[in-house]
Amino acid sequence: MIKIGIVGGTGYTGVELLRLLAQHPEAELTAITSRKEAGMPVADLFPNLRGRVKLAFSDPAQAPLSQCDVVFFATPNGVAMTQTRALLDAGVKVIDLAADFRIKDIAMWEKWYGMAHACPDLVAEAVYGLPEINRDRIRGARLIANPGCYPTAVQLGFLPLIEAGVVDTDHLIADAKSGVSGAGRKAEVHTLLAEAGDNFKAYGVAGHRHWPEIRQGLSQLAGRVVGLTFVPHLTPMIRGIHATLYARLTQEVDLQVLYENRYRNEPFVDVLPAGAHPETRSVRAANVCRIAVHRPQGGDTVVVLSVIDNLVKGAAGQAIQNMNILFGLPERLGLDQVPLLP
Amino acid sequence: MIKIGIVGGTGYTGVELLRLLAQHPEAELTAITSRKEAGMPVADLFPNLRGRVKLAFSDPAQAPLSQCDVVFFATPNGVAMTQTRALLDAGVKVIDLAADFRIKDIAMWEKWYGMAHACPDLVAEAVYGLPEINRDRIRGARLIANPGCYPTAVQLGFLPLIEAGVVDTDHLIADAKSGVSGAGRKAEVHTLLAEAGDNFKAYGVAGHRHWPEIRQGLSQLAGRVVGLTFVPHLTPMIRGIHATLYARLTQEVDLQVLYENRYRNEPFVDVLPAGAHPETRSVRAANVCRIAVHRPQGGDTVVVLSVIDNLVKGAAGQAIQNMNILFGLPERLGLDQVPLLP
Amino acid sequence: MIKIGIVGGTGYTGVELLRLLAQHPEAELTAITSRKEAGMPVADLFPNLRGRVKLAFSDPAQAPLSQCDVVFFATPNGVAMTQTRALLDAGVKVIDLAADFRIKDIAMWEKWYGMAHACPDLVAEAVYGLPEINRDRIRGARLIANPGCYPTAVQLGFLPLIEAGVVDTDHLIADAKSGVSGAGRKAEVHTLLAEAGDNFKAYGVAGHRHWPEIRQGLSQLAGRVVGLTFVPHLTPMIRGIHATLYARLTQEVDLQVLYENRYRNEPFVDVLPAGAHPETRSVRAANVCRIAVHRPQGGDTVVVLSVIDNLVKGAAGQAIQNMNILFGLPERLGLDQVPLLP
Amino acid sequence: MIKIGIVGGTGYTGVELLRLLAQHPEAELTAITSRKEAGMPVADLFPNLRGRVKLAFSDPAQAPLSQCDVVFFATPNGVAMTQTRALLDAGVKVIDLAADFRIKDIAMWEKWYGMAHACPDLVAEAVYGLPEINRDRIRGARLIANPGCYPTAVQLGFLPLIEAGVVDTDHLIADAKSGVSGAGRKAEVHTLLAEAGDNFKAYGVAGHRHWPEIRQGLSQLAGRVVGLTFVPHLTPMIRGIHATLYARLTQEVDLQVLYENRYRNEPFVDVLPAGAHPETRSVRAANVCRIAVHRPQGGDTVVVLSVIDNLVKGAAGQAIQNMNILFGLPERLGLDQVPLLP
Repeated sequence: MIKIGIVGGTGYTGVELLRLLAQHPEAELTAITSRKEAGMPVADLFPNLRGRVKLAFSDPAQAPLSQCDVVFFATPNGVAMTQTRALLDAGVKVIDLAADFRIKDIAMWEKWYGMAHACPDLVAEAVYGLPEINRDRIRGARLIANPGCYPTAVQLGFLPLIEAGVVDTDHLIADAKSGVSGAGRKAEVHTLLAEAGDNFKAYGVAGHRHWPEIRQGLSQLAGRVVGLTFVPHLTPMIRGIHATLYARLTQEVDLQVLYENRYRNEPFVDVLPAGAHPETRSVRAANVCRIAVHRPQGGDTVVVLSVIDNLVKGAAGQAIQNMNILFGLPERLGLDQVPLLP
Repeated sequence: MIKIGIVGGTGYTGVELLRLLAQHPEAELTAITSRKEAGMPVADLFPNLRGRVKLAFSDPAQAPLSQCDVVFFATPNGVAMTQTRALLDAGVKVIDLAADFRIKDIAMWEKWYGMAHACPDLVAEAVYGLPEINRDRIRGARLIANPGCYPTAVQLGFLPLIEAGVVDTDHLIADAKSGVSGAGRKAEVHTLLAEAGDNFKAYGVAGHRHWPEIRQGLSQLAGRVVGLTFVPHLTPMIRGIHATLYARLTQEVDLQVLYENRYRNEPFVDVLPAGAHPETRSVRAANVCRIAVHRPQGGDTVVVLSVIDNLVKGAAGQAIQNMNILFGLPERLGLDQVPLLP
Repeated sequence: MIKIGIVGGTGYTGVELLRLLAQHPEAELTAITSRKEAGMPVADLFPNLRGRVKLAFSDPAQAPLSQCDVVFFATPNGVAMTQTRALLDAGVKVIDLAADFRIKDIAMWEKWYGMAHACPDLVAEAVYGLPEINRDRIRGARLIANPGCYPTAVQLGFLPLIEAGVVDTDHLIADAKSGVSGAGRKAEVHTLLAEAGDNFKAYGVAGHRHWPEIRQGLSQLAGRVVGLTFVPHLTPMIRGIHATLYARLTQEVDLQVLYENRYRNEPFVDVLPAGAHPETRSVRAANVCRIAVHRPQGGDTVVVLSVIDNLVKGAAGQAIQNMNILFGLPERLGLDQVPLLP
Repeated sequence: MIKIGIVGGTGYTGVELLRLLAQHPEAELTAITSRKEAGMPVADLFPNLRGRVKLAFSDPAQAPLSQCDVVFFATPNGVAMTQTRALLDAGVKVIDLAADFRIKDIAMWEKWYGMAHACPDLVAEAVYGLPEINRDRIRGARLIANPGCYPTAVQLGFLPLIEAGVVDTDHLIADAKSGVSGAGRKAEVHTLLAEAGDNFKAYGVAGHRHWPEIRQGLSQLAGRVVGLTFVPHLTPMIRGIHATLYARLTQEVDLQVLYENRYRNEPFVDVLPAGAHPETRSVRAANVCRIAVHRPQGGDTVVVLSVIDNLVKGAAGQAIQNMNILFGLPERLGLDQVPLLP
């Protein structure tokens, strides 16, 4: 059994880790911390866990994190970077679900996240935890930077096109739509049901923190810096991301075959038949990315549709997938939930 | 492995049976029928099942149902009663998720369901599949009448009060609220998102088919015919039933102790601490009924709050619970999904 | 033109007052205050008002409220009571949309609202602004206590029964369901879309501040203290209240005729035909209460269904109705919006 | 007073015409037809109209349409073209809210709409009713082709860029999101709340009927055939369209000034300040298009955000705007509803 610690378990990625780990046959939940809720049984905060998770939140200072095999950080940005070195030194593997280790360019990170980075050397060591690209490097890592939700959907959608070198990478467009759980479990006016319900809006058009992360990933695939326009939107649903991607073809290619071949052996990427339109609910609660590729009217513009559950393949599920790889477990272990429909 | 047939698999109880059975370690999905969709892979209709259910719908006339160990009817009312005898004769157990075998009084059934009953003798034999009341009789049954969704939430809520004989059973009130999946996967105007979204209404106040079913169950508990006012409402959500129950106390009793004692050993009924308010999402996607009991301002009116997922404990999950009992399996087998929150 | 001031215009009752007053032919918006947003154009906070409301929020200390003809308080409880006397002394009429002047029993108010009352004498003077009961007294008032949202729906629903003396008033039950805008425009976790969406729950079963208000109103109608069980619920929609009311008949009466006669001349109460089920969307955005009365299976339990838009007839619209009465204007003036459906 | 007939009043554009016309000071509702609901009072089908619209549906064959001044067709595609000539001959003006007269290229229309056109000569005569482009021609017209919902949002968004000739018109991209009322009031499975709720999907990527309409409009503006990729999406809300538009700049221009100047005198187009993100709810229930223009990171890609209420500026409101122009009334008459927020 793998002893597991979770730092910062009161948000949506925290409760989702607990939901999934409670059913994982090799996971032993050992500690979950929250400064604010220390002492409260986890199931009092999250009633879905009643009878399933017996742990209480413990104070971060007293939690036996260094005795865990792996610690997940489900904290705000800037927390993991202050605690990771001590854990690594104690032989604990770390998977950060926040952004602290995602951007290799430290100056870039500091600009977008508005703080100085506490451990640039660990950024260099960290492996970006997108298994479809980095599976081999994940296997031997100590520290995983778990990708953001938008970056997962967008990178998996563009990946085959860019690897194959068949599109103009100077003008990629990602029009992405997210459910409100992506904004987290924070008391804010703009994500109230009375504000975000029955409403649709774009946000962050001038700049969103996932833009440099996506651009970094796509640039690595392309071997050169790509040009990317990224427009996120808030849609009145709880879970799910739908990325609609646009690129201009620079050479002829059978797109359906390209995608099917690239993802044939991926356990968590499902290429839909030609002509299909994936729905976010088809992946609700499950660690899957479903993708369809289109070429409307046979023109030179490719349209890729890519959907994930932002809390699963976009966060907690992918983190557990990374854990499975890190510990040599079958990659699907504990991640075989059937999506919930309706 | 238990060979399983499903008749009528294109509705919400059908897809929910498939979601749950696909993860059940003793279930072998053998046949699923649909006259209309015969030949179509199930996963083409329900994309959440891609990669998880390989069956295609087969024509009812050709499906090998008589070779199954158990057949679930997820059909409209009136279908199961025409096919059940042949299956029972072939040694197949039958679990009907529709209403054909729920009401013992044939005349009453025929009045509320508007058709003649095809096999009154089988109604007499059928066991009403509410395990919290009938577990022993379910064990030896050939034919299970799986309860309706409202009846499950309402009966489990009232049960301890009525068994204990502490309330006036002439004037029970059940104010129940359901998500729209309770209306099924039928093309109808009134359950369109543009009609039922951002809207709340009562319906069927003059009479709803679940009224005689609930009244029958409560009357059996009470040992006399109870008086019941039942008002169902449609609420703009997908899954979930919330029943708010009102009864007048006729003697002093510690309500919290009464409920906790009654359900202490029930695997799928969770009595919340005093003062709690169960939310429908705390049972979403799981086979659980959560109940809280209140006595506002210490008056003589008891208020019981009872929530279920109408498609799980209110339909497919309870049917599998019954299957587990019928076949001597652990009652929780394949039913340990953690509810989905958020 | 009536010069109008609004104190506390950044919440939902504030923006709704502005929406309605912007179209009122006799209203001249003169000042709107907000300590926090002073200086900001109202339309920057509420983009629906762009081009329609030119006012900016002004600091409460500097706003020319004493030069208004009427001031609306759209503030949290406890604010209006500290500012009302000075306004009345200056000859300004006051309509409080909060609860400061609703409860005549000061001790009761102080218990439920958790603070000392600043001006008990003005509570005695204030007229409870439910025109269907108090129209004549409103006409001559200086100070109006605008009713709460639940109290409006529940009192209008029970009113004919209690006035006629045909029900047992010791055991009234009000099962009420509200959209989330009733909780206001405050940053809170439990009303986030990711929390309150696709979810249903009761709250405040042990006690809700609207319980003493409703009880007071019904007791005045009954001429004796009534017994009331009041259970509010949160439903995943933005606007609307649906009250389902239960009472036991103590004598025979033609319920449909009773309701139609009582409300025949009321401009904003609509009694539906026998057998109908009012939907909240049928009153969305409009100052209407629609009511249907049922007697299921001809028993002795009456079921009344009463719907309003909590922000209109349950708050801002009713406040303007009161203003129209106060100033001798036609009661419908500026309140003839057709409900929005779908 | 203008005598008004409506053909086909049982859908969402029909009820929205009624809502708006019931408040229009110059409109006299004279006839509304429905084959299926003939004889039923309109307010029985649409309870929001109780007390506001006294008309009953009349049989199309017997309705006094030829005595009207203007007839609106709120019918499925293919109906208006069979009845328009007779009305025009009788001196009645016709505004078709369906697509019968929108596409000038008859072969193109017949391909996309799958039927032969009944009156190609009237297509040639019809004026495309987008007042921001065609106001002068609308003034003298007999027959108006009211634009589609997506085409309104997309054309108004692209218009200033294309008129100014500052973008590459070979590769325009319109990523559009619609609430479900855009699919109409038809009983269909895919727009049930249980299907479309808490879900997001693209549809019609290979081809949607609004593509040729948008392309025609933009090509007329550009003076040459444009290249357009159009991807519509279904979003879980009732009303609203959000179009996110992408184009590549071919020359330097002050985008904010360009948009503000173009729409300065338009009564129903609101250009937001630089950096803004319009929300669909900011136009809910009102005849407004709000637009913001962005240039992320100062690159060469322009992003335009354009929102409308699909039933108002995208259908019924625009039709009444056209009526006002046709009859020489002030363009805003009866169209001054303040948007509903929250």
